[in-house]
Amino acid sequence: MLTLYFAPGSSSMAVHIALHEIGVPFEGKPMSFRNNDLRRPDYLALNPEGKVPTLVVDGRPLTEVAAILYYLAKRFPDAELLPRDDLEADAQALSWMSFIASTLHPARRHGLEYAKGVYGIADKRLGNGWALGRYSIADIHLFRLYWRLANSLRPAPEEFPNLTAHYARMMARPAVQRTIEIETAVGYELPA
Amino acid sequence: MLTLYFAPGSSSMAVHIALHEIGVPFEGKPMSFRNNDLRRPDYLALNPEGKVPTLVVDGRPLTEVAAILYYLAKRFPDAELLPRDDLEADAQALSWMSFIASTLHPARRHGLEYAKGVYGIADKRLGNGWALGRYSIADIHLFRLYWRLANSLRPAPEEFPNLTAHYARMMARPAVQRTIEIETAVGYELPA
Repeated sequence: MLTLYFAPGSSSMAVHIALHEIGVPFEGKPMSFRNNDLRRPDYLALNPEGKVPTLVVDGRPLTEVAAILYYLAKRFPDAELLPRDDLEADAQALSWMSFIASTLHPARRHGLEYAKGVYGIADKRLGNGWALGRYSIADIHLFRLYWRLANSLRPAPEEFPNLTAHYARMMARPAVQRTIEIETAVGYELPA
Repeated sequence: MLTLYFAPGSSSMAVHIALHEIGVPFEGKPMSFRNNDLRRPDYLALNPEGKVPTLVVDGRPLTEVAAILYYLAKRFPDAELLPRDDLEADAQALSWMSFIASTLHPARRHGLEYAKGVYGIADKRLGNGWALGRYSIADIHLFRLYWRLANSLRPAPEEFPNLTAHYARMMARPAVQRTIEIETAVGYELPA
């Protein structure tokens, strides 16, 4: 039994997309920043930082986007969200996701000029394709970050040509469309 | 063939410790911030962010501490730096390392009062033992962060009783002693 605690448009969006890519049944629990849902004692018992996402697996909580995406990709290998039996590819996916979480994620708060530096590195590293050369959890994580940048700081598309093309390919995927449809219906209330 | 680009006392220290835990031969390449080694074009070709560590595996660069630790633990399972065949344990290790890289790592720059909040969460999550309940790469990564905090902001030991005890257990490990001996001999020049 899988339960996803999510807030529309937040970091949890990446996990939400992965669950739709896999097609496994799960219970979605929408969390409201406005209602202080993330500070409720029962939620802090699952996620002591009071962040989303949390994926609860048969009662056991798992936190952090990169860890949850890795778990889902390995538990449901038929979805091919990671290559099979390729340790270096796994490590490269983790390298991308660590870079995304620790470098791209905080960059938006420092404004567009700062973001240009680190997203410029991401754009160059990405190149004209998928992060690992084939679709994977690293692309889902990267897409969530660029989706947020594109909808907040609104860089010109030519600033990041590879990320812009990647974004368009991601937006065309049914799992992304379904996630956005559900999250839009719940309603966005993103923190700054 | 494994080559580690490292700077004494920096994030690369965690990888350096893991290599000594494993006992595999590797070439260590010390990098100097003062000499701008991390901005050299040949190094930026390996690590476009100009950071350490980079582990080069048969000519192929791998970046980000969490990814390199995962790679080493999986490639050398006899070192038991991750439990065997336990997907949830792998995911919990990645959850810890994502939290360490994205939340603990930047906290020190915000001063001791801010650090108390996030290291307090880490201290509580850790409890009286190892991060996964047995020694793993998550402990190595966590140790490097607390080592740096302890040697810069110098919190009182009673602020973080579990982290303080964890630090003492880590300092007693031969792989940690060997790493500190080597890095001290190269010389510390940590950036702010």
